Amino acid sequence: MAMALQSAQHETGALPATPDFDHYPIAQAVAVAVVPQPEGIVVTWADGQVDHFNRFWLRENEVADGIVNPVTRERDIDVAALPEDLAATAVAIEDSGTIAVTWHPDQRVTHHHPGWLRAFADRTRHPRAALPEQTTWDAASMAEPISFGGPRVLNDDGALRDWLIAVHRYGLARLGGLPDRIGLVQQVAERIGTIRPSSFGFLFDVESKPKPDSNAYTAGGLTPHTDLPSREMQPGIQLLHCRTNTCADGFSVMVDGFRVAEHIRATDPEAFAALTDLRWLFCNRHRDYDYRWSGPMVECDVDGRITEIRASNAIRAHPDMPGEDMPRAYRAVRKFMNLLASDSFRCRYPFSAGNLVAFDNRRILHGRDPFDARQGWRRLQGCYLDHDELYSRLRILAWREREISATAPPPT
Amino acid sequence: MAMALQSAQHETGALPATPDFDHYPIAQAVAVAVVPQPEGIVVTWADGQVDHFNRFWLRENEVADGIVNPVTRERDIDVAALPEDLAATAVAIEDSGTIAVTWHPDQRVTHHHPGWLRAFADRTRHPRAALPEQTTWDAASMAEPISFGGPRVLNDDGALRDWLIAVHRYGLARLGGLPDRIGLVQQVAERIGTIRPSSFGFLFDVESKPKPDSNAYTAGGLTPHTDLPSREMQPGIQLLHCRTNTCADGFSVMVDGFRVAEHIRATDPEAFAALTDLRWLFCNRHRDYDYRWSGPMVECDVDGRITEIRASNAIRAHPDMPGEDMPRAYRAVRKFMNLLASDSFRCRYPFSAGNLVAFDNRRILHGRDPFDARQGWRRLQGCYLDHDELYSRLRILAWREREISATAPPPT
Repeated sequence: MAMALQSAQHETGALPATPDFDHYPIAQAVAVAVVPQPEGIVVTWADGQVDHFNRFWLRENEVADGIVNPVTRERDIDVAALPEDLAATAVAIEDSGTIAVTWHPDQRVTHHHPGWLRAFADRTRHPRAALPEQTTWDAASMAEPISFGGPRVLNDDGALRDWLIAVHRYGLARLGGLPDRIGLVQQVAERIGTIRPSSFGFLFDVESKPKPDSNAYTAGGLTPHTDLPSREMQPGIQLLHCRTNTCADGFSVMVDGFRVAEHIRATDPEAFAALTDLRWLFCNRHRDYDYRWSGPMVECDVDGRITEIRASNAIRAHPDMPGEDMPRAYRAVRKFMNLLASDSFRCRYPFSAGNLVAFDNRRILHGRDPFDARQGWRRLQGCYLDHDELYSRLRILAWREREISATAPPPT
Repeated sequence: MAMALQSAQHETGALPATPDFDHYPIAQAVAVAVVPQPEGIVVTWADGQVDHFNRFWLRENEVADGIVNPVTRERDIDVAALPEDLAATAVAIEDSGTIAVTWHPDQRVTHHHPGWLRAFADRTRHPRAALPEQTTWDAASMAEPISFGGPRVLNDDGALRDWLIAVHRYGLARLGGLPDRIGLVQQVAERIGTIRPSSFGFLFDVESKPKPDSNAYTAGGLTPHTDLPSREMQPGIQLLHCRTNTCADGFSVMVDGFRVAEHIRATDPEAFAALTDLRWLFCNRHRDYDYRWSGPMVECDVDGRITEIRASNAIRAHPDMPGEDMPRAYRAVRKFMNLLASDSFRCRYPFSAGNLVAFDNRRILHGRDPFDARQGWRRLQGCYLDHDELYSRLRILAWREREISATAPPPT
């Protein structure tokens, strides 16, 4: 069915531009047959895979003036402006592998990069496709956070990537060997992406303060919790840099909330149901702000995968449920809190000066033992970023690695 | 059943502190009977309402050292530390209206503010309880955005509140009479709360630029869209300040996405189902960032209420669905885009220097006509905030108004 077509825009041998900035290998994307069909085209690849591509999708993704802007790579054409009876009338595979399509009724010929088409079919552009797998842990498998050299992360993309993969995989990973510098945590955060400020500041200083507006700013212990559950979307990533710590106590405590929730699901389905079905109101209230959000303590996606923990004993304000559900809600919360405190799940370690920990604030619960503020100084500086920033950086770092290997001379 | 109890912590006549900072009127919260029950206490109020209060909830919300921190108003006690057999053994209504409860097994006596208890029963602390109702609109009911005087909003809380109520109710409202000043939009935004930065900056300048990384930074027209649909949570509120505009064209276009979605639901349920059930991948990709999110274009809550629009013709990248769903997905998107462009729904008006518009970026789609960048200057500066910030500010402003009226001398 493939026919030879004269290309108006591309010389034979040149691949068309793609509407994004990635590399699309064409070795696995050799089309051997292309057939027009009422709703688009069907491509048969050399490896036997057969994929359908929708007519509107093909037309709205051509990189050309007035269609997808060749500079911004954003779409200019309004998809509603394409004719309703749009149809591929002729197709061709060019020598470069490019797939050319002629369209009714405007006779336009569009050219499509085969690797780009194949990537769509293989869903490699899906948000989670480029991310490493996540691995849950308990106290037995995580005695201390996995550690990386801090200074290298500041200017070495490979070191940054190794650290961030661990942050995503385990939900936390640590840097060591960093200096005591105000704003260093910002420098590290901006290696990832855009910082998310909050009512506690662009950066926040965790130390014992007079007139604290959070328990974090006392010398008291903190049961493991997620930060800002009073917000619609809790911050995805938290960075905490230990600038100084001359207190012997005040150990850090980290718990993998996904593992605890999995454990409850396996051993006490009724408590798990209460954690996922019943909503709690979380409040951060003060004289100048009043943040409130209501949500379940454990969230799952449609496939039942645990995706989020929302839990803070300090600011879990009220059960947001009918009165008859409250006994089972409290039973489940008390069970959850007991497991957080148990030695089976918690990773407990000294937080030493020069360390910086990054953790997934929607998965990992963080806490601390109380410390004696008269015995020394314990000063942390921290900030938040959304998951979007971590995922974007991981994709870009993977992309740069492919770019380097794509431009490297072939092995001799 | 009410018994007189000796209060260890409160003199008769004083109300106990509440674990937040609001005022709780006691006029509507006169308890006439209190009865202990296995799971807590039951209060009968003077107006006949009967409410149950859970035992763990009562105990974990007492304001006292070691329970709810009297300074931070955050909880210190771990709810799991309360005994499993906790039970109210005696109850009393004090002269002040305070409800006192004696507990097994520790014999502790706790005191509860009646207005605070009643507020819980009446759900007035629920996140949406303090917010004004939302009203959708079309072109017939919204010729131009409702306008308020800009300078007053900068230092008058009442003017700020009037404007923000309109922003929440209609999804957009405008300020006028503001000067051309870089950073003014930040000053206005910080009257609301914390700005949410993005890869486009803490503030962003919308003008025709060389090497634009978004169509917004060209002189081209923009079909109505939400900003940053490539992020897990789109920014809730967008502020745009028109600093200068000497172009005759480039009119603003605003469309109430909730109204358009309601119209589709009423007239074409199949298209509505495609918009709510099928997911699209939205991408902002560039050499240094790669944001992607997949979601439906219209989101509803469990009650079927439309809660979010995620739509941008420019960066709607790929259908994230099985191939057989794509024809109905494209039919629905084309219908949606056609309605956005129709005169029935769009509010179209000149964006004049000195105006600042705030709109709900998860409800209202904004766009513009093309302009001729050679004919004049069109310079906007903008920023984003999350819904959390708007809601928090509305609550605080309502709270301050109650505080003023609570301390005002009685009318003579």
